[in-house]
Amino acid sequence: MAADEKIAMRLRGELEKSGILMVNLIGSPGAGKTTLLEATLKKGGFRSAVIEGDVATSRDAERIALTGTPVIQINTHGGCHLEANLIEKALLEMDLEGVDVLFIENVGNLVCPAEFDLGEDFKIAVCSVPEGPDKPLKYPHLISMAKAVILTKVDLAEYLEFDMKLFWNDVISLNPNASRFEVASTSGAGIDEWISFLSACIEAKSK
Amino acid sequence: MAADEKIAMRLRGELEKSGILMVNLIGSPGAGKTTLLEATLKKGGFRSAVIEGDVATSRDAERIALTGTPVIQINTHGGCHLEANLIEKALLEMDLEGVDVLFIENVGNLVCPAEFDLGEDFKIAVCSVPEGPDKPLKYPHLISMAKAVILTKVDLAEYLEFDMKLFWNDVISLNPNASRFEVASTSGAGIDEWISFLSACIEAKSK
Repeated sequence: MAADEKIAMRLRGELEKSGILMVNLIGSPGAGKTTLLEATLKKGGFRSAVIEGDVATSRDAERIALTGTPVIQINTHGGCHLEANLIEKALLEMDLEGVDVLFIENVGNLVCPAEFDLGEDFKIAVCSVPEGPDKPLKYPHLISMAKAVILTKVDLAEYLEFDMKLFWNDVISLNPNASRFEVASTSGAGIDEWISFLSACIEAKSK
Repeated sequence: MAADEKIAMRLRGELEKSGILMVNLIGSPGAGKTTLLEATLKKGGFRSAVIEGDVATSRDAERIALTGTPVIQINTHGGCHLEANLIEKALLEMDLEGVDVLFIENVGNLVCPAEFDLGEDFKIAVCSVPEGPDKPLKYPHLISMAKAVILTKVDLAEYLEFDMKLFWNDVISLNPNASRFEVASTSGAGIDEWISFLSACIEAKSK
């Protein structure tokens, strides 16, 4: 782990010099991370690159490639999280010239990826309505350290018993400073607010 | 890990002697494992006990206790999976006299829990419709080793683009021998078939 932390620090230093924002998206399998990314890339208007992390398959990278965004797929072959050494290797194959923001979609897992520094500017926690409102307290580590918490699939709330107030109160109790977003990536609801937040982060980083 | 494997073998031997079936339920956060258990305990008619595994909180154990079933909560405090040594400690506090089946609900995680033997008779993979149909190939290890795959929340399929055929074809390609169930735990749809399967396993074990 110590060697990997050094790689993360080195990556952070390099991205600091080039002014590229690095965002680490973390959430359960099926939380809607890829669909959120697709909506973000289509509407965002910033120059992006994506690293996709999955145990197996390149399905997510194929989806991202359809948006015209440069993307690399990392397969962990059983590994439950991405590590900085994997990111460093992937970056050797990527041209980041002119890129504003590098998104990393971590392996679908609400526990392990939170423990690993990839050299990112910040982690984003992605939770979805169908998972139920009790997840922040049951998986507190990620929520506590996230720069923002995004609740996805809010268009399904009407078909489910989802206590919005409980969910956000638990998030606030763990991390009162986290920015909070409610989105439905397929309809586009809430995506503009999330993009405004990202744009401000990109602008701050580029200065 | 080797020490833990020995504990798992010891537990398996003890449960073999007492004829108690041990079932290890594994799935993503919010896949509906606890709700499936509640429906199973209410309708099953067998004498059950439950061990609940979570990173934090005792919310799931509180829900199970309402069904009148003996239950113990294990908190892993950041740990991403249960291990046999935790099960052994929990069993010291449980009276399994007369119990037919011991359910273990693992930490919500589709990756790591698949790697650890708890001494169970078999693992059950729990996937939910809102997670999307691409999960079997993206998280193949658990699916490959599961005795049964349960697709939950099938009542939500009508509101989502969920390709049922793709999901099951991918399951079958990984594990043609797995039993397959489609359930909606809140309405009770499909629960009888799952209970019949469990009953047959309990009967076989008790002989």
